[in-house]
Amino acid sequence: MSILVVGTVAFDSIETPHGSADHVLGGSASYFAVAASFFSPVKIVGVIGRDFPAEYMDLFSRRGIDLEGLRRNEGATFHWRGRYHEDLNVRDTIELHLNVLSGFVPRLPESYRNAEYVFLGNIDPAMQIEVLNQLRQVRLVACDTMDHWIQGSAGELRKVLGRIEILIINDSEARLLSGEHNIVRAARAILKMGPKAVLIKRGEYGVLQFTDSSVFATPAYPLEEVFDPTGAGDSFAGGFLGQLARARDNSQGGLRRAIVYGSVVASFTVEDFGLKRLTQLSLAEIEERYRGFIELTDFHT
Amino acid sequence: MSILVVGTVAFDSIETPHGSADHVLGGSASYFAVAASFFSPVKIVGVIGRDFPAEYMDLFSRRGIDLEGLRRNEGATFHWRGRYHEDLNVRDTIELHLNVLSGFVPRLPESYRNAEYVFLGNIDPAMQIEVLNQLRQVRLVACDTMDHWIQGSAGELRKVLGRIEILIINDSEARLLSGEHNIVRAARAILKMGPKAVLIKRGEYGVLQFTDSSVFATPAYPLEEVFDPTGAGDSFAGGFLGQLARARDNSQGGLRRAIVYGSVVASFTVEDFGLKRLTQLSLAEIEERYRGFIELTDFHT
Repeated sequence: MSILVVGTVAFDSIETPHGSADHVLGGSASYFAVAASFFSPVKIVGVIGRDFPAEYMDLFSRRGIDLEGLRRNEGATFHWRGRYHEDLNVRDTIELHLNVLSGFVPRLPESYRNAEYVFLGNIDPAMQIEVLNQLRQVRLVACDTMDHWIQGSAGELRKVLGRIEILIINDSEARLLSGEHNIVRAARAILKMGPKAVLIKRGEYGVLQFTDSSVFATPAYPLEEVFDPTGAGDSFAGGFLGQLARARDNSQGGLRRAIVYGSVVASFTVEDFGLKRLTQLSLAEIEERYRGFIELTDFHT
Repeated sequence: MSILVVGTVAFDSIETPHGSADHVLGGSASYFAVAASFFSPVKIVGVIGRDFPAEYMDLFSRRGIDLEGLRRNEGATFHWRGRYHEDLNVRDTIELHLNVLSGFVPRLPESYRNAEYVFLGNIDPAMQIEVLNQLRQVRLVACDTMDHWIQGSAGELRKVLGRIEILIINDSEARLLSGEHNIVRAARAILKMGPKAVLIKRGEYGVLQFTDSSVFATPAYPLEEVFDPTGAGDSFAGGFLGQLARARDNSQGGLRRAIVYGSVVASFTVEDFGLKRLTQLSLAEIEERYRGFIELTDFHT
């Protein structure tokens, strides 16, 4: 089943303790789309500028990603520059240029409107609502957001939360959104806002999933070397929704297996700068690490 | 099989955002012994002062804990006063009075020398070596330590590490001991120092176990309310070693199940101040939460 993603397609400039990369392909929609493409066909909705190179378009095309909904506008592509601390869990935004993203209103091509799995990447909740309004027969919508929208667009964000099935956020965002410090209480409060499931990303510590009737906890795959955490969250979401769409299984067991697939894909993403590792990855490697994840976590069989 | 623990028996004065408790029973040997007593007979080696009340002796006795090796010396019992931040992962030591612990040399009663499972709690590595020297036919020795000994008694600690099977420490201690920031590299470096297995405690994020041939990762049991994290690490070790001794299974599967039992016991400990929750606990509750842990983490069956 095909997956639609709306989010940013960006130039990222990244500094980590291991090195730096300038103007590499980034953005929530890019990471999500490449990650999900290992499992299911993906359609991108987003905007790029005149400066977006053919090389990056080719990268999407080689992964079979549908670019009909990726509009090219006058101006420069969205650009983010960030710097990670020695503790890679902490990063500072050095520069942020919205460029063509400013005032962008997503328009879905006719062929996109029947997408059955949808990911609303981390963009203005008003844009997320625009996308929801243009969809037909959606089977499942997942959504990401961040502190900027939680604090600045609370009303619009609440409308989004009332119309989606799954919210995927990190632990500090869950605390901010709910006003609860304890993460279990935070998740319970967010479930009351609408989503059927809340997935809380904890970086190197793994993921928690809460529904009304179930809690699932999984560690992250331990790595000897984390080069660049950029895009880990969006490629987690991509692997997660990709696997859900591939398996057509939205049961609790299906959700849990999809969370582990998401964790596996994210563990590859952080092994190199930007999208480099994902563009060299194979489904066979993903399946192998998934089996490794069972070996990593199993204690009762 | 019986378990021997050497460590502190203390008065703890604790301040958390939820309240405070003064001069309650604490110390690494106390938490370990009560936690392990649900699974196997336990013998304590340690020292208390004249001020140690009969009430606390009775508490140990009711759990069937052997106190022949708990010496009562002239002076006051070891006293620790600590304060937790709003983020319960951070605490400050406000007061530390060694009292009778200063210069204490552990002497094992004859009946203790055939203990088959041994836990060297967080005390001076020189005392840990004293205990090792007095043991016969040990089956398995596990050990804890802390930054104070890693920095101040590195030579003695290295001797201990060469003589034990399992090191149980937290993540910041693992980094300090190994000089490696990445936790996988830290564990690999520590395995080279002697232990066959390294268990790395990550508080609310769970536990990692490393051996030469295997990595195990488990989350912590998610709680809506953490009242007091004091003793979580030592009751984890108690549940872990208690279950190992009960099952007589030191295989990788046996170690993993014991880690989950340790996590379960620790999750009860933090639900109330000091040892309060553990003294009201039943093995049936432990077994029920163990089954809950399977439900919490299972994704592939």
